[in-house]
Amino acid sequence: MNGNALSTVVAGQHRYGVRVYYEDTDAGGVVYHATYLRFAERARTEALRELGISHAELLERFTLMFVVQRVEVDYLRPARLDDSLTVVTEPLEVGGASVRLRQDVRGPVGSCAVLTVRLACVKPEEGKPGRLPPRWRAALTGMCDAARFGDKGDNRWIGR
Amino acid sequence: MNGNALSTVVAGQHRYGVRVYYEDTDAGGVVYHATYLRFAERARTEALRELGISHAELLERFTLMFVVQRVEVDYLRPARLDDSLTVVTEPLEVGGASVRLRQDVRGPVGSCAVLTVRLACVKPEEGKPGRLPPRWRAALTGMCDAARFGDKGDNRWIGR
Amino acid sequence: MNGNALSTVVAGQHRYGVRVYYEDTDAGGVVYHATYLRFAERARTEALRELGISHAELLERFTLMFVVQRVEVDYLRPARLDDSLTVVTEPLEVGGASVRLRQDVRGPVGSCAVLTVRLACVKPEEGKPGRLPPRWRAALTGMCDAARFGDKGDNRWIGR
Amino acid sequence: MNGNALSTVVAGQHRYGVRVYYEDTDAGGVVYHATYLRFAERARTEALRELGISHAELLERFTLMFVVQRVEVDYLRPARLDDSLTVVTEPLEVGGASVRLRQDVRGPVGSCAVLTVRLACVKPEEGKPGRLPPRWRAALTGMCDAARFGDKGDNRWIGR
Repeated sequence: MNGNALSTVVAGQHRYGVRVYYEDTDAGGVVYHATYLRFAERARTEALRELGISHAELLERFTLMFVVQRVEVDYLRPARLDDSLTVVTEPLEVGGASVRLRQDVRGPVGSCAVLTVRLACVKPEEGKPGRLPPRWRAALTGMCDAARFGDKGDNRWIGR
Repeated sequence: MNGNALSTVVAGQHRYGVRVYYEDTDAGGVVYHATYLRFAERARTEALRELGISHAELLERFTLMFVVQRVEVDYLRPARLDDSLTVVTEPLEVGGASVRLRQDVRGPVGSCAVLTVRLACVKPEEGKPGRLPPRWRAALTGMCDAARFGDKGDNRWIGR
Repeated sequence: MNGNALSTVVAGQHRYGVRVYYEDTDAGGVVYHATYLRFAERARTEALRELGISHAELLERFTLMFVVQRVEVDYLRPARLDDSLTVVTEPLEVGGASVRLRQDVRGPVGSCAVLTVRLACVKPEEGKPGRLPPRWRAALTGMCDAARFGDKGDNRWIGR
Repeated sequence: MNGNALSTVVAGQHRYGVRVYYEDTDAGGVVYHATYLRFAERARTEALRELGISHAELLERFTLMFVVQRVEVDYLRPARLDDSLTVVTEPLEVGGASVRLRQDVRGPVGSCAVLTVRLACVKPEEGKPGRLPPRWRAALTGMCDAARFGDKGDNRWIGR
């Protein structure tokens, strides 16, 4: 949808490809633990973009932005330089002013890190929660349902 | 102990000062969410150094290293450019081959982010858990007790 | 060549697509100045990969690695969140144990930053210069010539 | 001034202490090349703060900010995990709307990286150059002279 071959959605799951460069690693020879949060943010941004939700539009049309409220990360196995990773993102729960996502950063032989991320939709001026615009809530809920029940591969859930 | 005025221990709590620079912020005008993991790692390293536990010694004498196994972060309020933050680190639980820490990143008006971090002690060659050397386990347990019961301000718990 | 649609070579110039995420920006609302070095490193790595030169092979077969010896960056205009950038990389000069590259990070309305990077090929054990393996020197020289004289679009210069 | 023991000025040179943590390193086992720009920015910010020039005041009172216009870095020897570095900053040249600094990142056995950084003073709204406020220009020029001719150790040049 954005011409990025690395970003696709199937059955309510968004997949995003990431290559590991030196910048992502540390002297332990593996991907630095905070780097997974950067990978997850890239994937999340592209997942939202696929749903037709861009940071820019959210801010300009609705004066809203997503902020990270809570993150949990389980580190399962190290990823290394030159590894080609896939971040699989799926919504777990969509609330009126928040969304909870699961993001699995998969390496060549299995999951490297699994994140649960809670994003809140806020009005940046006031720092207060703001309700998700209905079209976007519908898109996220549709993605949620597709992940849970499977979809027919027709991306119906994108809701546009 | 390391000549760093920014790192002190009182009553089982380690305090470490951090200033926010441009590198730490994002276009939202606040500290980027993954940056708190970097701040916490700096504080943790200095807390362990105060206990007489250096990465280098752990690796060279015992062929052991700490790896992050799980992180939880709650983001409470944004920190901003030029803010002077204090990371307060205290051990919550000391196991045979792991330690769980609470790290509170405090800004001018209260906590910005609270992390719970589980570190595992591993043998990097084999990728298997390795038991914490007794002196270090004692130091961490002492810090834990001091945090729980208070200490007499004499840093007895440092155990050397 | 590596299945990455974002990495292509035409007429001795390697092009690599980069999207700007929050992680790349700072509180000034623009891409943080050190971020361009990270973008350039990603592009460089993919450019070398296109030439058949991987970090891993260089290290394992020849016990050699590239290190950055000198960087010059001119910052021309700011890139911003969500911008889609292209890093255009071309070799300027290929020596026996070094290569000098020009990397132009282009945004929607023109160059954001232009880098000149000198990489040295070293033996990491000894920290001494090591000669570029002939096949790789040829590939880099070919890319250099193609950039200078134009090529027929047949990627002849890749030299394999 | 800021109670930071790690930041001092002597004879027109500002010294700032930096410790190397995992976040600063890469899989090559050394400090990642772009990290030196982050270290230099920290040091620069503290050097300007010592001169009584804070980002916040510059922006609020004068609607001006410093932006990096050009950076040159020579990488001389690798710094490593746990190293304690000193960034020595001195102004080379002070213009009406810009300043050129030399920043030397010194490790235990000598310089690791030497940077030359040209900062421009700009009006962020318009993206145009803005003249340095006279007091600040005087402070920077004083620091420049002190570096060149030596001072009597009384920090006279700070100009307050």
